[in-house]
Amino acid sequence: MPLEDTNNSSLHSGQLMHRRTPNLEESTPTLYADIENDTTSKSLTSNGNIQQRTKKRHWRHRIPRLGKGIYLDLCDRLPYYVQDWKDSWDYRVIPSLIETYFNNLLPAIAFAQDMFDRTDNSYGVNEILLSSALGGIIFGALAGQPLCIVGVTGPIAIFHYTVYEIIKPLHTNYFGFMFWIDLWALIFHLIMAFTNMVALLQYVTTFPCDIFGLFINVVYIQKGIQILIRQFHKTSSENNDNVVSGFASIVVALVMTIFGFFFKQFYRLPFLPHKWRKFISDYATALSVLFWSGFVHFGGYLNNVDFQYLPISKSYFPTSKIGRDPKTWLAYAEISTKDIFIALPFGIILTILFYFDHNVSSLMAQRSQYKLTKPSSFHYDFALLGVTTVVAGVLGIPPPNGLIPQAPLHTESLLVLDRDNNVVRCVEQRFTNTVQGLLMLGTMTRPLLVCLGQIPQAVLSGLFFIMGIQGLTDNEIINRILWFFTDPVIKANEKPLNPLSKVRLRSFLIFIAFGLAGFVGEFAITNTIAAIGFPLILLLSVIVSFIFPKIFTREELEILDPPVAQKFTIKNLLLENLCNENEPSTEEEEEITMISALQASSLFSSTATRTDNDSSFDSSVPDNNDMTSAGSLSIAKSNANTTYPNKKTETSINIHNS
Amino acid sequence: MPLEDTNNSSLHSGQLMHRRTPNLEESTPTLYADIENDTTSKSLTSNGNIQQRTKKRHWRHRIPRLGKGIYLDLCDRLPYYVQDWKDSWDYRVIPSLIETYFNNLLPAIAFAQDMFDRTDNSYGVNEILLSSALGGIIFGALAGQPLCIVGVTGPIAIFHYTVYEIIKPLHTNYFGFMFWIDLWALIFHLIMAFTNMVALLQYVTTFPCDIFGLFINVVYIQKGIQILIRQFHKTSSENNDNVVSGFASIVVALVMTIFGFFFKQFYRLPFLPHKWRKFISDYATALSVLFWSGFVHFGGYLNNVDFQYLPISKSYFPTSKIGRDPKTWLAYAEISTKDIFIALPFGIILTILFYFDHNVSSLMAQRSQYKLTKPSSFHYDFALLGVTTVVAGVLGIPPPNGLIPQAPLHTESLLVLDRDNNVVRCVEQRFTNTVQGLLMLGTMTRPLLVCLGQIPQAVLSGLFFIMGIQGLTDNEIINRILWFFTDPVIKANEKPLNPLSKVRLRSFLIFIAFGLAGFVGEFAITNTIAAIGFPLILLLSVIVSFIFPKIFTREELEILDPPVAQKFTIKNLLLENLCNENEPSTEEEEEITMISALQASSLFSSTATRTDNDSSFDSSVPDNNDMTSAGSLSIAKSNANTTYPNKKTETSINIHNS
Repeated sequence: MPLEDTNNSSLHSGQLMHRRTPNLEESTPTLYADIENDTTSKSLTSNGNIQQRTKKRHWRHRIPRLGKGIYLDLCDRLPYYVQDWKDSWDYRVIPSLIETYFNNLLPAIAFAQDMFDRTDNSYGVNEILLSSALGGIIFGALAGQPLCIVGVTGPIAIFHYTVYEIIKPLHTNYFGFMFWIDLWALIFHLIMAFTNMVALLQYVTTFPCDIFGLFINVVYIQKGIQILIRQFHKTSSENNDNVVSGFASIVVALVMTIFGFFFKQFYRLPFLPHKWRKFISDYATALSVLFWSGFVHFGGYLNNVDFQYLPISKSYFPTSKIGRDPKTWLAYAEISTKDIFIALPFGIILTILFYFDHNVSSLMAQRSQYKLTKPSSFHYDFALLGVTTVVAGVLGIPPPNGLIPQAPLHTESLLVLDRDNNVVRCVEQRFTNTVQGLLMLGTMTRPLLVCLGQIPQAVLSGLFFIMGIQGLTDNEIINRILWFFTDPVIKANEKPLNPLSKVRLRSFLIFIAFGLAGFVGEFAITNTIAAIGFPLILLLSVIVSFIFPKIFTREELEILDPPVAQKFTIKNLLLENLCNENEPSTEEEEEITMISALQASSLFSSTATRTDNDSSFDSSVPDNNDMTSAGSLSIAKSNANTTYPNKKTETSINIHNS
Repeated sequence: MPLEDTNNSSLHSGQLMHRRTPNLEESTPTLYADIENDTTSKSLTSNGNIQQRTKKRHWRHRIPRLGKGIYLDLCDRLPYYVQDWKDSWDYRVIPSLIETYFNNLLPAIAFAQDMFDRTDNSYGVNEILLSSALGGIIFGALAGQPLCIVGVTGPIAIFHYTVYEIIKPLHTNYFGFMFWIDLWALIFHLIMAFTNMVALLQYVTTFPCDIFGLFINVVYIQKGIQILIRQFHKTSSENNDNVVSGFASIVVALVMTIFGFFFKQFYRLPFLPHKWRKFISDYATALSVLFWSGFVHFGGYLNNVDFQYLPISKSYFPTSKIGRDPKTWLAYAEISTKDIFIALPFGIILTILFYFDHNVSSLMAQRSQYKLTKPSSFHYDFALLGVTTVVAGVLGIPPPNGLIPQAPLHTESLLVLDRDNNVVRCVEQRFTNTVQGLLMLGTMTRPLLVCLGQIPQAVLSGLFFIMGIQGLTDNEIINRILWFFTDPVIKANEKPLNPLSKVRLRSFLIFIAFGLAGFVGEFAITNTIAAIGFPLILLLSVIVSFIFPKIFTREELEILDPPVAQKFTIKNLLLENLCNENEPSTEEEEEITMISALQASSLFSSTATRTDNDSSFDSSVPDNNDMTSAGSLSIAKSNANTTYPNKKTETSINIHNS
């Protein structure tokens, strides 16, 4: 993704992160128990007096109150609400709006085609556009963090047609069933948001994200191929015609992919000034769709081809005529009580998927290099996501959630850069997200819908290829495998040396094997009857990542598997904030805590026994020094909570696109 | 071409070249008159005494004797003949043989298809293979310089089908007519070889070579497209089937081009150790042809396609059944006297084409970085080329000539490299060229011919695309245009700075415009009835390059338009050697000449008037200093002949692939 273009090295300078265990040892072990907690607590009993004191201090902070996260989020964001609209008066808003609209629209219609084909036309362009509009308007206007673009994603498309296939034998109403899934999902969303379980997000590392990214991009390519295969044997009855359309579609998709990918990657080439290069890359996909949709009308032998186009239906009305009343968007139909409870596990799976997909999207839209100044809002936004999900259920459309890479691209398009392409500030406002949602609604009007209906399916296939290949080139698993096969001479001469060269070969290979195993499992399952379980594999990969400290050294994990979230962004996910009854501590208080942390750590370093095999004992003193320059909130405090010998030290990290 | 991989900078270190006017002012002005001679001879009369002495010394040297060049070539190479065979006992010979065979075979069959289609089947695979075999065996065994691979080239294919189209209305026998063209060509070849006119080669700069290279590679791509278009409307009468075959062929050609080009360029990527990368690149084309020929049999919808294959005919017999007796290779048929003289201008055009194409191929196969130690042989080889041409005329096959890039690739495959990829030596021998010729003959046997007959025409189209794109990426005109559009920031940070940045923008643009005009003229003419004239455009571009000193400064021309030939390689083309009645001078004699040259130049520097506008007067003293390290023969001597104020100084050069 073009995101990689921005100098990532800046990331390594100032941000500090908790690794998995930080400041949670103090809280309820039943909920947050870590595999290492038992051993550590034993080894620390000798330092009883210190622990006693610390425990006493934080006794009342161990369980965050119900809804505390949402409360904190609202406290943070509400004061900015009016300003968010006022800040929309900025030049950057217009180009950002155009770019975001196309970035959102094009993959959406590709998914529309896919869902149309695989749910017997239950969903079409109208549904996808309405879902994107719903997401954009609600999240633009009402979300805590209005920068996160939501819409219809690849995984949600897979989820929907898999549910469709599964419940077909049940002879229940599909839209009624989907409504119940969404309602269950709302309930779980609300439970998770109010019990502050979104805080668990801070333990998600890049490992599952990379697997997810690889999976999604391979699925994109697979979808492109599936669309092309469908061109061979649809439409008319005559056999030959279809073969012509099949091969001609492959030609269009291939040529479009070649040109689209070339121009998409244009910013990597040395030609033209940087701004122009970036411009060409940014609009490559949109212009590719435009040009190659026109191309099929160029005449010659193309006239002999019976191309199939994106199917459109009556403007502002549902696509499906089966299972729902095509005159209204209220899709709910009664289903049996048994089916309602069959929908429950699907609701859980949907919640897991959204928990992961939406929150990671949101995190990526708030990466530290974007220099955002307004606070984040994970708890409240997740609750809001539950609401949009059930609204989508009522309307009989796929529920929107956070989009990668559209969400981070949106933030990027709002950056104000200086002459040397350094970020000056980001235009944080609610206009772009809301209005791109409204534009989606506008796209549902007849004239624009007819335009969309002129897009050949071959072009959608090419669109999938471009998205997939683009994503693969940025995937960390792929890049590491490529790095592994890089000429040792070239590796040795790299400046600066790739951090991966510090990892032992054995560790490197084991880690890659884990990643590939995760991907293969994920991809394999979507091609079986159990496809619906793919978010569970995702969850499994998160769980697997918790045993990594047993296999890899701390230094290796810092390189191979850094956490996704960054301190500043996830402030309201941290227990010390969630459990604090008061407002965030003053600077004086922090300083005192820091001193006690220093004392504690120096005591530990002389008495504690080492429990971790590979990781050398690292007192938090040098970390504290680093932190003073980190610009993160309540760092000293968190240190006071985490001075254990085998804690994973806080490290600077880099978020990888997934 | 992969040639560019080797470090070209070595070229800039030691080789010294004459620029256009060197050591010719002394010789017959009628033959070699240069535009600048008149002014210079006038301006130099004041130095009469020195000139008198120089003139006296070289009086008898002004016109080289008939056949002197051939004599010198034979004197140089004959003593090596037995050694050339003995030197074949070397490990490098086997991989080189395999690589050269495939490098030669694959484009040859692509041209076979092209000529087959455009001459009503007068030529086929058999003719092309026989021509390649003839060239390989004769040049391997009998040429002075056995490293230059000869075979059927793109231009000769164009020449043949254009002649075919032109003489169709004459109702004369095509093979008889071609025989006469070849016979006329032989006569002109012999005239040029014996009158030492091959020496003119030293005035050819890279300008026409680059135009020729651009032209040829664009024609390759054009041919690939033409083959694909033909897939739409050949074979069966049913209309639809052809469209299927057309689009399916495009698919095969496109996918093959993508993979073939990717692997061909693999050596540029950082992956795998250098040797492996190079290996993959070297065999990419051959393996692409193999794989994609098999691909069409993979089944599925490909079974619905009626692919067309490379047409083959009876082994060891001529393809054509019209205009020649298909039982014998003696193709000559009597034609009218009028037609014999109509063939004459075609013979001249063929000679011009071969003069340029063959000699430049030969030069490129002997570039200085290959560190050849055995002498070159341009005069004799050109005479030999005349002989093979007429033999081809008798057999009714297209005459072979020097191949780019096969000839330089052949030399490269014979290099012995040290661990750091520096050239240690080149295995200069006669085995590889001769035996690859014999292998071509072996390829004409039935089983192998049937294998060739399995190659779909779509794959040949892909082959043309790969060759064409590959050639374009190495073309100097294209690279300069790309450089022009390169981000100024990147250009400024290049280390070392591209020499082009020293050229004034105006000069740069004018030069590029000349190049493009030449290409457009060349390409346009081949698409008209006057296609046959394309070698004349080539000749015109050589002539145009003679006015460049009036437009560009000397420094600019050294960068924009260096001579193709290098001193050591073209020793027998230099007049001081051609006109010297004795054997090459001893070292003592050279030293004396050098001293007199130094005296002469210092005298000139104080008295001569500047006649050249832009080029500052440059005494040859520093040049002489450079030359002592150049390792070239009789350098000082040539300087003694060329100490004129407005001579184009000798510069180090780089040969560009064309």
